[in-house]
Amino acid sequence: MTAYRVEHDAFGPVDIPADRYWGAQTQRALAIFEIGEERFPDCLLHAFGVHKMAAARANLRCGVLDAAIAEAIVAAADELRSGRFDGHFPLTVWQTGSGTQTNMNANEVIANRANERLGQPLGTRAPVHPNDHVNASQSSNDSFPTVMHLSAVLELEDRLLPALVVVRDTLRERAQAFADVLKIARTHLMDAVPMTMGQAFDGFAAQIDNAIERVRGTLPRLLVLPQGGTAAGTGLNAPPGFAEAFCEEASLLTGQAFRSSPCKVEGMAAHDALVELSGVLNVIAVSFTKIANDLRWLGSGPRCGLGELVLPDDGLTSSIMPGKRNPTIAEVVAQAAMQVAGNHVTVTMAGASGSFELNVAKPVLIYNVLQSIRVLADGARVFALRLVQGLDVNPERLARNLDNPLLAVTALNPVLGYDRAAQITKLALAQGISPREAAIALGLLSGEAFDRLVDPMRLAKGQQ
Amino acid sequence: MTAYRVEHDAFGPVDIPADRYWGAQTQRALAIFEIGEERFPDCLLHAFGVHKMAAARANLRCGVLDAAIAEAIVAAADELRSGRFDGHFPLTVWQTGSGTQTNMNANEVIANRANERLGQPLGTRAPVHPNDHVNASQSSNDSFPTVMHLSAVLELEDRLLPALVVVRDTLRERAQAFADVLKIARTHLMDAVPMTMGQAFDGFAAQIDNAIERVRGTLPRLLVLPQGGTAAGTGLNAPPGFAEAFCEEASLLTGQAFRSSPCKVEGMAAHDALVELSGVLNVIAVSFTKIANDLRWLGSGPRCGLGELVLPDDGLTSSIMPGKRNPTIAEVVAQAAMQVAGNHVTVTMAGASGSFELNVAKPVLIYNVLQSIRVLADGARVFALRLVQGLDVNPERLARNLDNPLLAVTALNPVLGYDRAAQITKLALAQGISPREAAIALGLLSGEAFDRLVDPMRLAKGQQ
Amino acid sequence: MTAYRVEHDAFGPVDIPADRYWGAQTQRALAIFEIGEERFPDCLLHAFGVHKMAAARANLRCGVLDAAIAEAIVAAADELRSGRFDGHFPLTVWQTGSGTQTNMNANEVIANRANERLGQPLGTRAPVHPNDHVNASQSSNDSFPTVMHLSAVLELEDRLLPALVVVRDTLRERAQAFADVLKIARTHLMDAVPMTMGQAFDGFAAQIDNAIERVRGTLPRLLVLPQGGTAAGTGLNAPPGFAEAFCEEASLLTGQAFRSSPCKVEGMAAHDALVELSGVLNVIAVSFTKIANDLRWLGSGPRCGLGELVLPDDGLTSSIMPGKRNPTIAEVVAQAAMQVAGNHVTVTMAGASGSFELNVAKPVLIYNVLQSIRVLADGARVFALRLVQGLDVNPERLARNLDNPLLAVTALNPVLGYDRAAQITKLALAQGISPREAAIALGLLSGEAFDRLVDPMRLAKGQQ
Amino acid sequence: MTAYRVEHDAFGPVDIPADRYWGAQTQRALAIFEIGEERFPDCLLHAFGVHKMAAARANLRCGVLDAAIAEAIVAAADELRSGRFDGHFPLTVWQTGSGTQTNMNANEVIANRANERLGQPLGTRAPVHPNDHVNASQSSNDSFPTVMHLSAVLELEDRLLPALVVVRDTLRERAQAFADVLKIARTHLMDAVPMTMGQAFDGFAAQIDNAIERVRGTLPRLLVLPQGGTAAGTGLNAPPGFAEAFCEEASLLTGQAFRSSPCKVEGMAAHDALVELSGVLNVIAVSFTKIANDLRWLGSGPRCGLGELVLPDDGLTSSIMPGKRNPTIAEVVAQAAMQVAGNHVTVTMAGASGSFELNVAKPVLIYNVLQSIRVLADGARVFALRLVQGLDVNPERLARNLDNPLLAVTALNPVLGYDRAAQITKLALAQGISPREAAIALGLLSGEAFDRLVDPMRLAKGQQ
Repeated sequence: MTAYRVEHDAFGPVDIPADRYWGAQTQRALAIFEIGEERFPDCLLHAFGVHKMAAARANLRCGVLDAAIAEAIVAAADELRSGRFDGHFPLTVWQTGSGTQTNMNANEVIANRANERLGQPLGTRAPVHPNDHVNASQSSNDSFPTVMHLSAVLELEDRLLPALVVVRDTLRERAQAFADVLKIARTHLMDAVPMTMGQAFDGFAAQIDNAIERVRGTLPRLLVLPQGGTAAGTGLNAPPGFAEAFCEEASLLTGQAFRSSPCKVEGMAAHDALVELSGVLNVIAVSFTKIANDLRWLGSGPRCGLGELVLPDDGLTSSIMPGKRNPTIAEVVAQAAMQVAGNHVTVTMAGASGSFELNVAKPVLIYNVLQSIRVLADGARVFALRLVQGLDVNPERLARNLDNPLLAVTALNPVLGYDRAAQITKLALAQGISPREAAIALGLLSGEAFDRLVDPMRLAKGQQ
Repeated sequence: MTAYRVEHDAFGPVDIPADRYWGAQTQRALAIFEIGEERFPDCLLHAFGVHKMAAARANLRCGVLDAAIAEAIVAAADELRSGRFDGHFPLTVWQTGSGTQTNMNANEVIANRANERLGQPLGTRAPVHPNDHVNASQSSNDSFPTVMHLSAVLELEDRLLPALVVVRDTLRERAQAFADVLKIARTHLMDAVPMTMGQAFDGFAAQIDNAIERVRGTLPRLLVLPQGGTAAGTGLNAPPGFAEAFCEEASLLTGQAFRSSPCKVEGMAAHDALVELSGVLNVIAVSFTKIANDLRWLGSGPRCGLGELVLPDDGLTSSIMPGKRNPTIAEVVAQAAMQVAGNHVTVTMAGASGSFELNVAKPVLIYNVLQSIRVLADGARVFALRLVQGLDVNPERLARNLDNPLLAVTALNPVLGYDRAAQITKLALAQGISPREAAIALGLLSGEAFDRLVDPMRLAKGQQ
Repeated sequence: MTAYRVEHDAFGPVDIPADRYWGAQTQRALAIFEIGEERFPDCLLHAFGVHKMAAARANLRCGVLDAAIAEAIVAAADELRSGRFDGHFPLTVWQTGSGTQTNMNANEVIANRANERLGQPLGTRAPVHPNDHVNASQSSNDSFPTVMHLSAVLELEDRLLPALVVVRDTLRERAQAFADVLKIARTHLMDAVPMTMGQAFDGFAAQIDNAIERVRGTLPRLLVLPQGGTAAGTGLNAPPGFAEAFCEEASLLTGQAFRSSPCKVEGMAAHDALVELSGVLNVIAVSFTKIANDLRWLGSGPRCGLGELVLPDDGLTSSIMPGKRNPTIAEVVAQAAMQVAGNHVTVTMAGASGSFELNVAKPVLIYNVLQSIRVLADGARVFALRLVQGLDVNPERLARNLDNPLLAVTALNPVLGYDRAAQITKLALAQGISPREAAIALGLLSGEAFDRLVDPMRLAKGQQ
Repeated sequence: MTAYRVEHDAFGPVDIPADRYWGAQTQRALAIFEIGEERFPDCLLHAFGVHKMAAARANLRCGVLDAAIAEAIVAAADELRSGRFDGHFPLTVWQTGSGTQTNMNANEVIANRANERLGQPLGTRAPVHPNDHVNASQSSNDSFPTVMHLSAVLELEDRLLPALVVVRDTLRERAQAFADVLKIARTHLMDAVPMTMGQAFDGFAAQIDNAIERVRGTLPRLLVLPQGGTAAGTGLNAPPGFAEAFCEEASLLTGQAFRSSPCKVEGMAAHDALVELSGVLNVIAVSFTKIANDLRWLGSGPRCGLGELVLPDDGLTSSIMPGKRNPTIAEVVAQAAMQVAGNHVTVTMAGASGSFELNVAKPVLIYNVLQSIRVLADGARVFALRLVQGLDVNPERLARNLDNPLLAVTALNPVLGYDRAAQITKLALAQGISPREAAIALGLLSGEAFDRLVDPMRLAKGQQ
């Protein structure tokens, strides 16, 4: 049996479970928004901890809060940051488009906890008031988008970028290990000219190099915060210097170089910077799709597929085909990429839906952005450690594929011209003979000359 | 401190928390797929309960299982269906693309529970074996897509369709209440000709009528199940009659008319039926976006907006602007619609990604479909009960807007011709006078004739 | 040197190229919307011909137009329908969201041509006036969406459905030809159990069967026309019976069963029926992607790929690799499918963007829908005739792949149980021996028993 | 009657219209790809001119071509660049995924024209051969993606960036003109606190500032060219130094700083840089959607809408409502934005679809990217010149809306605290009185104090 306490807000009394730190506005919202189960990830709640710490310190510096109140708020918000109140945010993301309910939830949890630290029971709203003190100099309209940026930046720095570095390094390590492993290249899925497996992996690593560069390229705009705009971007009720002080404190707390937006209306009415980030996550999803697909195709078989790569065994198997091994990790990464691409459309629509001084699709927008970061980052790490790192080549299959490759005749273009080289291919295909045999049969080249001109390793290295 | 037991599968021993019913393949998967937090909704787990009950009964009928084993499986699966084992599915959706791990999780939970019911400790794999008995005559490759269809159909019937009916009826009720409330129509956001508020709400209700029809239109293909295709659609290891028996049992358990697919390869290698459903959910999202936007715009103000509708007060307010009321429910529904539209792109990509005999984006596909159904259904219900039902009109504002509407001159076209009617509008706009005054000033009509021809209610009813 | 004539509209004089039939509103729009090059396809212009014929006949029946005027309009519109004025629609799709400019373009071309037929020079606006007569009882707001439905229905009937039938029949013909061609099935891209090539093609054909059913399923809502709603859905200025008469005439002209919308506001303010159609086109794109991908993968090689299918030679080759053959048609179809999937997102956004009594994204919406129909239909036809019809199998490769397939041990599950069957796979993989040899080595089965239980054709047919 | 000539390629003779410069591979492709009507824009053809000029010069420098041949190719390609051969590219974008047919079309046109300049009739293939000379040291596989980058960069520099600058400057000019125009801010569409119209336009301008920065941010990766990778990224048949020489020549011809890709496999097998660009175009579409929507809403009316802005008259009107003015330009821009967002999904799917050494969705990918650039750029210019530049405010409406705004009580929070300020709003709403009257009635403030604390211009400037 749940015990309840009664809290009051400007609209009257509300019953709240006695052991929960949230307050009246949160409880009212719970009864209204009975939709779905999707919750903000913990990283957003922790970013609210950072945010309210920075805000309290800035309010102290600007003379809005006295030291005792500010200190209590900072201490309570620090606990929020550290995860202590993760279970005290009962709302789903399906709430008002400004994120007001989750901002109020944070204000209420912190106010209750700060008052508790100051010796008051939960629900007193004094000496620390959720609006007048925790939310001082703020509106949900500038605080929530600020937290959106804070949480996104921290997730990029703490989660995505390190994971991308791991993938990139692992791919490059394999590229070096496979530097002299010859293979047939494939264009249009069809046998083409010789190359090395290392070159293929260098291509993958180059994609992730660019991915890292792309993520970093979004930071200049993500580090800009609209805090200080308050209700409508004009800064009403925020004291002079508050915006800058907030950014300094947030930077100190996180080690990131946040700075105050020169146009706070823009940062509240639009979320172009996050749509841009989502676009970059979408590119990374595209890159991973390409790489994961190539790996599972090259590892297909074991006997009737391409079979040039050997994927590490993960101990999982089919429910009906005993002992069957499947490229599970590649499939996971491909699916995560699809999620990110779909999330990106949601983010695009959310970003486009703002009106006047406020975008009111903030919760769904940041929920999707943070989910995309998370699944990409986790997926990247698992991909590196459980798939790429354990990859090996199948030398027999590679060698068999390189025996007399049809389109190695491409190397004869500079000698014979395209049209005569084409006759070789034509004859070889028609009679099922090797291109070497066809060249000799057509009287175009001696076998010796053919072998000299069509040396796979020389071709792979692009040497003439 | 967690206690563990040791289970064995074909690959060796694994440690499993002693109080959990899952087995070795689930535990192995847990260690591998450390990605994200997204879990299948309970409705999919419960559908697995239905599925394994139906399979056990069909196996009994086909002589594959003896009565004691079948009975134990049915009893355990029934508990799964009723929610008892919701906490025993620890994997996220980020797993092999066939859903094998969740199918094996279901097999293992049911086998363990069935063995327990038969007096054995967890982990014995006997007398009930997860593969040989619970999964008998099945593969993940046909079972998981069957569960995808089962769970989608049940969610449509139990959740979405009833919610759509509530919205439709509520909108139509308001349409009747507002049948004689005159208002200005708006095209291109600009003042147009008179109409009634009831006509606007009739339009909304018609959209939802069609939504219901669209959902029902997908059922003929969703009720078709690939069960019996086993590993690759050929039916290997499934006895004659199993597929049909399964569909009969599943129909009995759910009250839905499931039938066996005439081409099981299609139902395992592709998920066009679910992509189609997602397309319909996408249309419904579009419809809700239109309706929710109209309602919040018509309710905008209270003083500087359109203000023709009064939205019910929900007791929530701004964190900085005291007592401000916002169209929270409309914003929630609009955000849910964005999620559905984005999910649809994920589903589309997942549906397009199959190769040969198996689509391997099943988990991400069904996760997104079920999320879309859920947020649309819950959103629809909240929309009806907390927004539409409480709507009222603002008679003063409506009347003011109908006083001498500029484009009511449209009614003069049949009398004056378009070009002369246009002169009236031009003069009225240029001099800031009413169109009636302009018509008189131009000597085109007497005031009396104008009033007779331009009666708002007659215009709204389309009468001449 | 272009000669010009001067035309007047309600806003003054405009210069128009002397040999063009459009009028002042079209010319004004040309000067304003200098954006892009995308034009409506001819089928939409021809549908406008049908539309204005039906409208003139309905106006005659309702007494709005006299016979001479109506007849002149019908004759001119019939020429528009037949393609005579394709070069007289200079505007791009980037115009007002109601499609007003293209509706006025049609009104002006028809008025000018009708007047010419009645002995007047271009530009007289009499006796036939573009607004008062050609547009009589209509608004762009109901005419343009009516033309959207008309053109979509005609394109579905004349272009897409016949093309789908051709693809379906061609696939099924190949399925029959390959009915007894054994092959290895692949799940997760990995070797699985035996099946026939015919089963794979049956799966493809089943997808297109459903595609046809899906397209037909949208017609009940596409055949409903909002004509008669005029400016805002209320029917202002349309005489009683006009809407029904219009649908009768349009049905006579096209052979389709159009009917008047019971809620015209819905058909003008929203385009859910076209979003629904786009969703179905999206499913078809998904289906084609799957099929085209499978075909090009099965035809990959010729020596280092899967090589089970032989694709017909199209005489095209690489610019550098002489004589290289590529799966060009499969690539075209895959690209067309991507276009359709992207168009669908545009259509979704367009459909969601309506406000109050008018959706104002009509031009972009119908442009994308008609493009999707066209590229799918043309792509389907080319796919059937130039790829599917000419497909053959490579018997040597198929046979080699079926020699001792690893996972045919699945057939031993009912005899040995899953765990012992898994030991066979494990040993075979570890020692590079056949599963038959492994089964004997493990003492589980005699070679004779193995051969009896693991007969590929029996397995493919799902027999026990 | 069309006259024909006969050309031969490696596969035999082909009939070609006598006055067309294309050759046998183009003509073969025409007969095969009978799909749709979408053609590459001229800018891509012109970029091919640049490309083949640079390639010929690089081949000359590397000793692959002699001076006479190189010079003839350069002269012919220069004509292609200048638009002379726009009518000689008959293929649609629906062709092989490598763009081979359009590359061969360019090779054939240039070879024919170069031979013509050297005194030979069309179709001789000598002395200049389309493959051996025009395509020397190249493959479609590196040339087409190089042209994709070339054309995209040139369109960004020549078309999009200048148009964005015009929009940004026009918005900022309006921001300055409206710097002291007070208005009510709106959040959640509801009346909020005072601000200036200038602040709103500053927000718009800031979005476009960022748009420009975003476009520039993609250039470092777009300026990297894979030319020199030839068939599979290994550089087979390209002489040492060719890749670098090509980039130098291309840079000289265009004034852009192109550089050779350090990993050509990446640039041929993936198009992440273009997916990234498309993501940025998608953000810009989002920004324009927001701005265009705000402008049309603020200009809605003229009597029953928000009416705070007056949009310039464009002379276009309704086909039924005489003289009605609509926000046509805003609707065009919104529709263009939807196209871009949909194209982005197509580009994403195309980008994700590469396999091994070649992405084979190149034509559809670049078609969509170039269309997005074009409609955004044209749309931006029209938006600036025909909408933003002519905007004015409606002082009466603005003033009326600012008379006693309800939520200006927000300014009282620091004095009264949030809960007491909320009582004022509550009373004002309940009794239909002004907040000033409510504050006095509640005994919370004198009228004088209220006026001092709630001065709109001070509030708008965020002063305390």
